[in-house]
Amino acid sequence: MKKEDLFLGIDIGGTNTVVGLVTGTGEMIGKNTFPTFAGKSIKTFQQNLEKTCLQLVNSRKDHLLGLGIGMPGANSEKGTVFNPVNFVWGDVNLADMIRDQLKLPVFVTNDARASALGEMKFGNAVDLQTFIQITLGTGLGSSFVSRKEIINGNEGIAGEMGHTKIINKNRMCKCGKRGCLETYVSASGVIRTVFELLGSETIDSHMRDLSFNDLSSEAVTSWAEKGDELAQKAYLLTGEILGEKLADFVHIFNPEAIIISGGLAKAGKFLFEPMKHALNENLLPSHKNKTQIRISDPDVNYAVLGAASLVMNNVE
Amino acid sequence: MKKEDLFLGIDIGGTNTVVGLVTGTGEMIGKNTFPTFAGKSIKTFQQNLEKTCLQLVNSRKDHLLGLGIGMPGANSEKGTVFNPVNFVWGDVNLADMIRDQLKLPVFVTNDARASALGEMKFGNAVDLQTFIQITLGTGLGSSFVSRKEIINGNEGIAGEMGHTKIINKNRMCKCGKRGCLETYVSASGVIRTVFELLGSETIDSHMRDLSFNDLSSEAVTSWAEKGDELAQKAYLLTGEILGEKLADFVHIFNPEAIIISGGLAKAGKFLFEPMKHALNENLLPSHKNKTQIRISDPDVNYAVLGAASLVMNNVE
Repeated sequence: MKKEDLFLGIDIGGTNTVVGLVTGTGEMIGKNTFPTFAGKSIKTFQQNLEKTCLQLVNSRKDHLLGLGIGMPGANSEKGTVFNPVNFVWGDVNLADMIRDQLKLPVFVTNDARASALGEMKFGNAVDLQTFIQITLGTGLGSSFVSRKEIINGNEGIAGEMGHTKIINKNRMCKCGKRGCLETYVSASGVIRTVFELLGSETIDSHMRDLSFNDLSSEAVTSWAEKGDELAQKAYLLTGEILGEKLADFVHIFNPEAIIISGGLAKAGKFLFEPMKHALNENLLPSHKNKTQIRISDPDVNYAVLGAASLVMNNVE
Repeated sequence: MKKEDLFLGIDIGGTNTVVGLVTGTGEMIGKNTFPTFAGKSIKTFQQNLEKTCLQLVNSRKDHLLGLGIGMPGANSEKGTVFNPVNFVWGDVNLADMIRDQLKLPVFVTNDARASALGEMKFGNAVDLQTFIQITLGTGLGSSFVSRKEIINGNEGIAGEMGHTKIINKNRMCKCGKRGCLETYVSASGVIRTVFELLGSETIDSHMRDLSFNDLSSEAVTSWAEKGDELAQKAYLLTGEILGEKLADFVHIFNPEAIIISGGLAKAGKFLFEPMKHALNENLLPSHKNKTQIRISDPDVNYAVLGAASLVMNNVE
């Protein structure tokens, strides 16, 4: 790898797509975001992606070695995307499609795996052998890493923590099942919890003046910080559910650390204090206090860095 | 390894300890069982173990290369056993203790990991890269294998599936927590379920004449086979709980197969039909029908073979 080599890292989320122009040392020298339009055809997305990439790369095209893409439902072995829950794109070979379109090497992985790769190469997991990475975005992505290797599973579709089942909850998930973890523990889940609480509780709240479609998880966080009790209670419930479920995976996996990233991590203590408490409450004595919780800097997009690192690893 | 080399494989269960004298090709040429007396001091166990080993090995002592031990709560990295749930032995260094006592190389691993090693070397996992191994004995042991490597976790205490939490259940576990999977899905769990059903249902049953302490899971299986509806219902509930929980781990791990061994596996269709149904019901479309269920031959003790293989692998 040469010093002037450049890589595009692309993080396709249910709401927005982030494109980063990255150096071999993990410096993001350019970044742009566009709406994914997950509910529209993939053609729309392809046009927006091409435009954004060309703008970012501009005159530096000769140094660009390729694109790495992280997105939900992606299969790293095949380069395909299988009908991800928040998308209407169906079952497509994204790697082939983008390679044909942009005439560049393209590598694809699951969004949470991209984050795990970024954390391993440049972030909070540089020193870790065995950890769990969780991304709290529109949904909940996860990645299990053992001895510095991401567990892909037999067909590359491991890590679907978002669709494991929560105790005593029956909320409908976009996947068609009920009680999936991400129906509570995600940006969209917190909004759903707020609206259930607006109904079930009598606590006054600034959010009583907002419609469901007008509320964002950022606003819930901001209200929680300003002392809105209902917003705080929504995060309390979210944290308890996450902590209780994480206990299952700490028992199974005995990780050194759990790394949590994504927009919802900005909720800070409102989410993580109840999470840590519930995690500890549900662990065997042998497993208590053996797993660090590391909150990833929300201003660094490790999913983009990790997606870019797919190309770097291939060049090396 | 020479043709005449011999290995002792020891499977310490909550009820019985099985000692097998094994050849390098996995043939068990001698076998003996004694009660573990998990509720008595470890000295009692040590005396019984020494007597049983000496009887089995007899005149072949010169060919014996060492002992491998599988038991709940064992830490393969350290050789220690940390306060296993059904034992009163506390926190001991079992490997050092037995090595000093018998003057032979000793290797220790978790009971479920011993089964997984046995299945990988001689059994149902010879052809598998990525699988989950479950042992349904007095408790529920498990082992997760990715790319032919057992996931030990950071401190060698991974695989505690028995203490993950069941949805909507609150049964007390010997570990001090409530709702642990093994309070239902294990030999002791089935007996507890039978007794709850004797109370909650009005179905007639041959088991209405038995005390809690007189009922064994083998008897429940035998009554189920003879058409006892309550025994069948106990297995139906057990299977449903196991299947629902396994869906979590199939989502996380995307295994080629789940291998199930242990005494409770003798319940056959009464346990495995509802289990398969509940597993399938709870999977994402992308994960349905991707994981085989393999039931291990209950007459082959893969835990003993796997424990013995710890010594073989070290000799090789």
